[in-house]
Formats: sequence, C-alpha cells, structure tokens
Amino acid sequence: MPNISATEADAVFRERINAVEATATLCADVPLPLDSGESFGPIEVAYHTYGTLNADRSNAILVCHALTGDQYAVLPHPLTGKPGWWSNLIGPGKVIDTDKYFLVCANVLGGCMGTTGPKSINPATGEPYMLDFPVITVGDMVRLHARLLDHLGIERLFAAIGGSMGGMQVLQFAAAYPERVLCALPIAACARYSAQNIAFDEVGRQAIMADLEWCNGRYLLEDRVPHKGLAVARMAAHITYLSEAALTRKFGRKLQGREKVGFGFDADFEVESYLRHQGSTFVERFDANSYLYITRAMDYFDMPAEHGGNLANAFRDTPVRFCVISFTSDWLFPTRDSQAIVRALNAAAASVSFVEVHSDKGHDAFLLDEPELHETIKGFLDGAAERAGLAFPEASR
Amino acid sequence: MPNISATEADAVFRERINAVEATATLCADVPLPLDSGESFGPIEVAYHTYGTLNADRSNAILVCHALTGDQYAVLPHPLTGKPGWWSNLIGPGKVIDTDKYFLVCANVLGGCMGTTGPKSINPATGEPYMLDFPVITVGDMVRLHARLLDHLGIERLFAAIGGSMGGMQVLQFAAAYPERVLCALPIAACARYSAQNIAFDEVGRQAIMADLEWCNGRYLLEDRVPHKGLAVARMAAHITYLSEAALTRKFGRKLQGREKVGFGFDADFEVESYLRHQGSTFVERFDANSYLYITRAMDYFDMPAEHGGNLANAFRDTPVRFCVISFTSDWLFPTRDSQAIVRALNAAAASVSFVEVHSDKGHDAFLLDEPELHETIKGFLDGAAERAGLAFPEASR
Repeated sequence: MPNISATEADAVFRERINAVEATATLCADVPLPLDSGESFGPIEVAYHTYGTLNADRSNAILVCHALTGDQYAVLPHPLTGKPGWWSNLIGPGKVIDTDKYFLVCANVLGGCMGTTGPKSINPATGEPYMLDFPVITVGDMVRLHARLLDHLGIERLFAAIGGSMGGMQVLQFAAAYPERVLCALPIAACARYSAQNIAFDEVGRQAIMADLEWCNGRYLLEDRVPHKGLAVARMAAHITYLSEAALTRKFGRKLQGREKVGFGFDADFEVESYLRHQGSTFVERFDANSYLYITRAMDYFDMPAEHGGNLANAFRDTPVRFCVISFTSDWLFPTRDSQAIVRALNAAAASVSFVEVHSDKGHDAFLLDEPELHETIKGFLDGAAERAGLAFPEASR
Repeated sequence: MPNISATEADAVFRERINAVEATATLCADVPLPLDSGESFGPIEVAYHTYGTLNADRSNAILVCHALTGDQYAVLPHPLTGKPGWWSNLIGPGKVIDTDKYFLVCANVLGGCMGTTGPKSINPATGEPYMLDFPVITVGDMVRLHARLLDHLGIERLFAAIGGSMGGMQVLQFAAAYPERVLCALPIAACARYSAQNIAFDEVGRQAIMADLEWCNGRYLLEDRVPHKGLAVARMAAHITYLSEAALTRKFGRKLQGREKVGFGFDADFEVESYLRHQGSTFVERFDANSYLYITRAMDYFDMPAEHGGNLANAFRDTPVRFCVISFTSDWLFPTRDSQAIVRALNAAAASVSFVEVHSDKGHDAFLLDEPELHETIKGFLDGAAERAGLAFPEASR
C-alpha cells in the first residue's frame, strides 16, 4: 500500500462514507414559528450527510447533537482537529453503518457552527443577532429539523438518535412528527429537565454574564470574547458529565507533573489541569451567547407540561418504535429520567425497549466506546430494519 | 411578661448561655509551624465561648466550622442577622446543652471573620496579606485550635464536633492530639478529599480569579470586590450542598412570580432565583481570597497519605471515642467516605460508632433539624459524659 498523506487519507475517507457538508437556507418564505410566539427566518442550517439515500428514501437516520456538539459527528472537527464526536459509532461497518444508512446531522438552531444563532448576521441590521436572537426551545430546534428533512426530500426517517440534548430532540421529534420517524433512540435524556440541571445551567450562564468581556452580550461588536466566563461555565458543566467514580479512577488525587503539592493556586492536581484544559479548549470552538441560548432551551424542556401534565399524552397511538437507553452512573440524566419516559410510553401502549447500560463513566458514556451501548443500538436498528424490510443501497451489498 | 426589645432579648439570651466573644493573639512568640514548611505568626483568633467551664475543666467541646462558616455557631451573624449556623443544635437544654458544656468555636486560620486570613493586615507591610498569606492546610487550622485551647487553659476536650470541613478538623484533631480529646464526632466529612470535590473547588476558584475585579488578588488595595466571581463560586458550590431530591422537592420546575416562562435570561425558575440569592448574599459576608485559601486547604486534605498510605495508622492505640455520621443523600461527602473512616478506626481497634442518617436533604443536612442526627449526637455525648463521670457546672443542676 503506497504512503498517502493525511489529507489524501481524509479525502479517501470522505469519499468512502460519501460525506457531504452543506448549508441550506430555510424558512425564508415561510418563517419558522417559535414556541415563544415569534416567527423566525430566514435560517441557515449547516448539516452533514453520510452514506447514500436508498431508492425509496427510507434509510435516513437523523443524528441529533448535544448542547456543545455540532454537525461534525463523523468528520474531524475543523477547529479542534479532533475526530467527530460519534465517529466511534458511525462509519462503514460500524454500529450505525454508513454503507446501509443515510445519515443527516445538522447544527441546531441557536448553534455556532454554521446554523443561524446569536453570532450570525441579522440581515435586518447587518450586525450579529447577539441578544436580539430569539429565545428558542428544543421544540423549535426540532421544527427546524423537520424543515431540513423537507428540503432533503425525506418524508420519513428510519430513525432519530441522539444523546443528552440530542435525546431530548429525538423524543420531541417523535412526539411532534410520529408519522415521520420509524424508530426513536433517546439516550441519556429526559422528558422533563430537572431543577438540578436548571441550576447547573444557571451557574454556567451567570459565569458567562459575570465576565466583563461579555459586554452585555455585545462582545462581537467590541472585538472581545468572554473566554474566562465561558471556560468556567464549561468546567462546572464538565464535572456533571463525569461520574465521581470516573473522576476517582481517572485522576484520583494524582498530582500534575510534580512530586508534592505546590502550596499555591497552580494546578497541583491532574483533575484541575484536566478541567482547565477542558475550559480553555472549549472557548476556542464555542460561542458564549450560543451557550446561553442552548442551555435556556434545555431549561424550558418539559414535555409533560406540554401535554396536559401527562407525558403519555405525547405518545398516544404512536407508531414509533422506541429504544430508551440510560447509564447507571449518569447523575445528570439519571436512569429514573429514562424510566419516566418508559412508563409514559407503556401507558401509551407504545413499542418500547429500555436498556440501562452498566457504566461508571457518567453522562459522557453516550459518547464513549461502551460495548453494551453499541450492541444495544446495533441490535435495535438491525432488528427494526429487518422488520421494516428496509432496502439498503448498493454500496452495502 | 413585660415587652422587651429585640436588643434586650438578645442580651438576656447572651447572658443565659454565658456567651463570650473574644479575640486572642497567638503564635507571637512561637510562630505556628505550617505544613508548607513556613512558620506563621502572630495570629489573631476570633472565637466564641458558650456555657461555663467546670471546675476540673473537663466539659469543653470544640465546635469546628465548615468552609464558609465561622464562630457564629449560636449567636446571630453580625453581617446577615441570621441565627447562628448551629443554633438549632446548641443552646440551653438543646442537643449540645450550654448548661452542661463549655463550647469553644473559633474562626479558622485563613478565615475572614476576625481570625487572621488573607484580608488581615500583614504587620510587616501594613497592607492586607492578600496572596502573600501562606497556603494553609486543615492540619494548620487544627494546630492553631490547639494553641487556642492552650490559651484557654483547656488541656483536654470532652469532645470535638463539626460537619463537612468541620468534621475534617475533628478527625485531624483526634489524629494529631489523641490525648487532648475524649470524643470525636466527624459529621458528613472525609479523611481524603475526592477528585470530584477538588474539581468543584477549582471551578469556584477559577470563577473568582476570572473576575477582573479580583485584580490578581489585590482587590482590597484597589477598593474593588470580585462580587460576581465569588457569587458564581457560591452558586456552583451550593448545588453540591443539596441533593437532587431536595432540589426537586423544594423547587422542581416552579416558576418565580410568573405564570409562564419569560423567554429570556431573567430568573424564570424559583431554583434560579434561589441560587442567585445564595450567591449575592454570600458575597456580603465572605472574602474571595479566604475562599481560595480555605478550599485549597480542603483539596490538600489527605490523612491516609500523611500516615503511610493507611488511615488506620492515624489512629493506632487512640483513646478517643468516635461517632461517625453521614447522610444517605449527601453526594459531596458520601457515606462511603465515612465508611472508609470507620473501617480505618476498626482496623486500629478504636472505639467507633457509625450512623448513616436517612435524609433527602443532601450535604446540608448537617446544619438542619434532622431528628436522627440530633438524637445520635445527644445520645453519644450523654453516654460518653456519663461514662467519663463528667461533672457539669452548677448552672445545669
């Protein structure tokens, strides 16, 4: 095999998975109705597709990303150079097989990787929206996903899948568009955002807003960036993504490049150094105002409240097949949140499978190489595809 | 009963419990050796005593406060006007009976309520120490407590008691001065501070240091205060003091003075409003640099490491009677931390009782009216006092 450069290897991989990076301008003629009552448009939606849509357009999977995720589920991130956030799960012959399925992953409304968000230019003013961006909800994100599917000519998804806020979108999609999705896989998610999670989000927002560089949200105009506040927000949030056991196993009280504690405020401990690194790398790729808007959207997520106080009402007569997945050590979206979803689906006589994956890695487990998670997803998708008589594209045969 | 003013009532109460507020200048001639290797002095120690020392000076109890506590365990706090932090536990006829015991509660080294800390004037420069204050440990705090007891002529305590960092001091005191304390009651504490707790402390410190008003620690000279950073630190920490169940029970998704969410970044939810209040009231009573130093002292707390990797070595042949208490819903100092202490005490053949109090109130339970907690403390103290043949002062008869 001849030596090939990294760039060539990348090009080969992109061709192999038929990666398409695109941006669609949507909601220009018919603005998107928002849960706040406003209408909003036009909206740029930055998305990737992988794989090939089959002849009857029945093999599409919508991949929904979490708070700080984006459309780079598979391709390396352009700002960090890191592999796509679900590149361990998605690819040729992988759990979500790009030879079989046509995957769509879009940056969410309010995001900062190409989809219209607070840092995008407001065509009405020629300036970034900043805090003039409308406050959005997970429902709004999902309504925009549906518009994107319209644009792509996909009437019905084979599946929608996502973890954390991605899982919230999956649930919301299944409730809002039950005829447009065959399978829904909400992972490490909830139907009703908890007081503790709102509290952590509020800490993050206050950390950003406390940074004078935030300039009351107008930092882009002032050519400043609230790096420090955003880093603190990320550090606090990052702790909630891990379990105490994972932190102890990974770091414990190990010192960072020293024999004994330094009796100062430098990063003595590996865990401090790790957190600082998480904070400082995050600010290179994420917009502070997007962080405010997307956390707020999560705070507002309350499906039971939207359905007369009974989550089961969201799924009456649903044809969707659900696979609900949680992790034993996830304390941000604990198993009881998933159990509440399962109970509601049972009460609605929906088709639902539930797996609590044993993992000590906390909420982040949904992003990691967890064999039980991968087997669960693969088994569910394969079974559902077979039952649906799904035709796979030529490439997979 | 004649009407009496609040001031008169306060005076009557102070007399009733024989409250003494005092400050001692210690370590002037013999500086305090610190774990960092430095020596430090003179040190002002602000302390309260309640009750009356009996004739043979055998009824003294050292009350150790937590990170943001102080000597106002019983008397109302002068800056907030709120009742003392353990006033539900300590008083005439209460669980820790001021008619029976002589209580000593001192602001810790590095604190900001009168004991020498970063905001105190450095006699060598005439300016506040600020970041010239030495980095201290829980061991240093306890060494200073011992000096205070010398000053008060108390050779041996009947008991040492405290929750959270107060409990860490209790353990450290028992290990360092086994002949100077009869009973030790570490509550919701640990012998080895965890990676997760270091992580949360680091978030708090970074929030403070991110505040431009912190001025690299020199805010006192600049007549500025890092209010926002300190408030964010407190908000993040406060979440860890509560349980998810307590947050859900207390706040859930209840809205703050509104019918529906405001689609903005004001405090829509009660839990947001509550956290903001916790942050903004905290900054009125606490010094940001003290917060840095005291959290650092907790980070450094690792009794096993100080005893050859085996906590039991800290308690070999100890004459101290231990009562270890944890709370089922405490995730900051979970029961397994207390169990590790108990296992070590067992391995050292020490006298140890252990109670895991059922409470859904999280770490904060040690400050609250928890009947099981109060009964446990009262039973243990009464039993130990009887066994020791403790003579109570006249007032209690």
